[in-house]
Amino acid sequence: MKLTNDVTEKLGIRYPIIQAGMAGSTTPELVATVSNSGGLGTIGAGYFTTDKLDQEITHVQELTDLPFAVNLFVPSDKLYLPEKVEKMNAWLRPYRRALNLEEPTVNISEEEQFNTAIELLIEKNVPIVSFTFGIPDGAIIDKLKQNHMKLIGTATSVEEAIANEQAGMDMVIAQGSEAGGHRGSFTYVAGDQVPLVGTMSLVPQIVDAVNIPVIAAGGIMDARGLIASMVLGAKGAQLGTAFLTTEESGASTLYKNAIQESKETDTVVTKVFSGKPARGIDNDFIHNMNRYDDDIPDYPIQNQLTNAIRKASAQNGDTKWTHLWSGQSPRLARAVSASTLMQQIIRHTETLI
Amino acid sequence: MKLTNDVTEKLGIRYPIIQAGMAGSTTPELVATVSNSGGLGTIGAGYFTTDKLDQEITHVQELTDLPFAVNLFVPSDKLYLPEKVEKMNAWLRPYRRALNLEEPTVNISEEEQFNTAIELLIEKNVPIVSFTFGIPDGAIIDKLKQNHMKLIGTATSVEEAIANEQAGMDMVIAQGSEAGGHRGSFTYVAGDQVPLVGTMSLVPQIVDAVNIPVIAAGGIMDARGLIASMVLGAKGAQLGTAFLTTEESGASTLYKNAIQESKETDTVVTKVFSGKPARGIDNDFIHNMNRYDDDIPDYPIQNQLTNAIRKASAQNGDTKWTHLWSGQSPRLARAVSASTLMQQIIRHTETLI
Repeated sequence: MKLTNDVTEKLGIRYPIIQAGMAGSTTPELVATVSNSGGLGTIGAGYFTTDKLDQEITHVQELTDLPFAVNLFVPSDKLYLPEKVEKMNAWLRPYRRALNLEEPTVNISEEEQFNTAIELLIEKNVPIVSFTFGIPDGAIIDKLKQNHMKLIGTATSVEEAIANEQAGMDMVIAQGSEAGGHRGSFTYVAGDQVPLVGTMSLVPQIVDAVNIPVIAAGGIMDARGLIASMVLGAKGAQLGTAFLTTEESGASTLYKNAIQESKETDTVVTKVFSGKPARGIDNDFIHNMNRYDDDIPDYPIQNQLTNAIRKASAQNGDTKWTHLWSGQSPRLARAVSASTLMQQIIRHTETLI
Repeated sequence: MKLTNDVTEKLGIRYPIIQAGMAGSTTPELVATVSNSGGLGTIGAGYFTTDKLDQEITHVQELTDLPFAVNLFVPSDKLYLPEKVEKMNAWLRPYRRALNLEEPTVNISEEEQFNTAIELLIEKNVPIVSFTFGIPDGAIIDKLKQNHMKLIGTATSVEEAIANEQAGMDMVIAQGSEAGGHRGSFTYVAGDQVPLVGTMSLVPQIVDAVNIPVIAAGGIMDARGLIASMVLGAKGAQLGTAFLTTEESGASTLYKNAIQESKETDTVVTKVFSGKPARGIDNDFIHNMNRYDDDIPDYPIQNQLTNAIRKASAQNGDTKWTHLWSGQSPRLARAVSASTLMQQIIRHTETLI
């Protein structure tokens, strides 16, 4: 099986290995190292201000001349219900009291920041953009394409993959249920849940349904996962957790250690941190706050309400009240440099194909 | 990649393709056809009386001289709480009334039937036994091994796989969360749930942890899934849903059609039918009964309480109150003969490896 295909060609990279845009945990060093190693580094810009995004892009461009991507969160419909926020603030009071934190003010507007980010990516000649939580408006897609940017969508179901293809995405990530962090979902299915389809099932069913290249994600940590994905029909793989524990990652030592000490059964999918379902290592905060599942305000409201609690808990060296996003393969996570990880994957593929 | 390895050698089969022991849906024709096509057919004996099992084994032995397996449910700890059964009977009353059914009597003893089945398998020279829901006592394992029978365990986590290896199983099935029907789990994890780890994550983590051969299960429907599993380190694959829609399968036309009309996002994991978590297509019964999740008696009590309702619903040609076990890849299910399915998988592997 060849590692060069229409994904590597379209993206201008050597190996079809994409570092996931892990918002909050990417650094310019990580992004540039992955790209310099022949893969595609991704700036996880989901929570960035425009200024911060500007600085990060400049920094990455100083460290590499090779293609890299920026991952953006697409603004989604949400309801701001003051009573719900008040109720949630009541449930969060014990945490804030314990950590000496005040109630934050909530800002639900994502659109302005998203639109400014799009303008910035064009201005800075970012070659590749990937999207999570949905598909941007046709006008935005047209503008990015006029600027010769390659667009990567995210799908957690066949329906979402088809929607990405129809919207004009150049390729689509098939995010299996094993994946750590936020579900990229933008549709609801049985039981009013987001799709949670395993990578082994999701990839071939999406491959059979669309004509654009498919990139597998979810549980992939090494050459075995990359080649297995490609046997299933994907043209490449996106790895998150595998890069999260590398030396160049921006994740705290506390967070990296938590992943390395975890088992494959330790993660759960929860809305308690951000208001959107995401997979992370089960802890005290998830356990307690799951009881108030019906009271969780929509993303990004819940994200803002819990943000300071999570930061303070982590700063105190305590994993119990902070998010610990991880996929279902933490036993395969290694504390190596991102370039070593890339080299190991590439070298090992030769023994498998 | 070679299709012959220690799994094919130990089991005496040509291709490392195992038809899952789908209790209630296997027929002697299906089992024999899979074995005669070079794979391993499996009698799903989970719900059989000893007489029925005797007949089925005899029938399979008339149809093939090649190895086949019998899958047994290992008896598990359970609580019989009369108040809980009474409460559940109250919730089930509307269904029984609509279908003109009486309250069944409950029989919680599984041990006697299990032990008699073990004796029968020895007597009938069944070459291979696979286990679901746990690991039998050491004395039973010893006896089966003294009779030169090969034993296949089921694991849904690394911990369960190690327990299977330590108990002396010859090989272990790694059942990913994509799999249809009952979870083979016998341990509980975060959130008091059974493990639900995707095949892409589960297989390599189990492969790294045990020395016995691993067989992948969950979402595997075709040559792509088989070879992807083997790239992940498995020595073979077990397919359930793929064989369920074949001509030789014992599933009703109603049930087969329901799978073929389903999407990858249509299944849920539920305890409402049997008291043990199992993956099936979401329907009215699951939707309504999920509300009484805390009132569901342990397996096999709930299984017996809902049995007549499910049968009557299916006999009326109605899918809404019957179990429709399916994995997460129903879009890949085909209405062909089991021998055609086997041939297609084997022929297609050549283009992938």
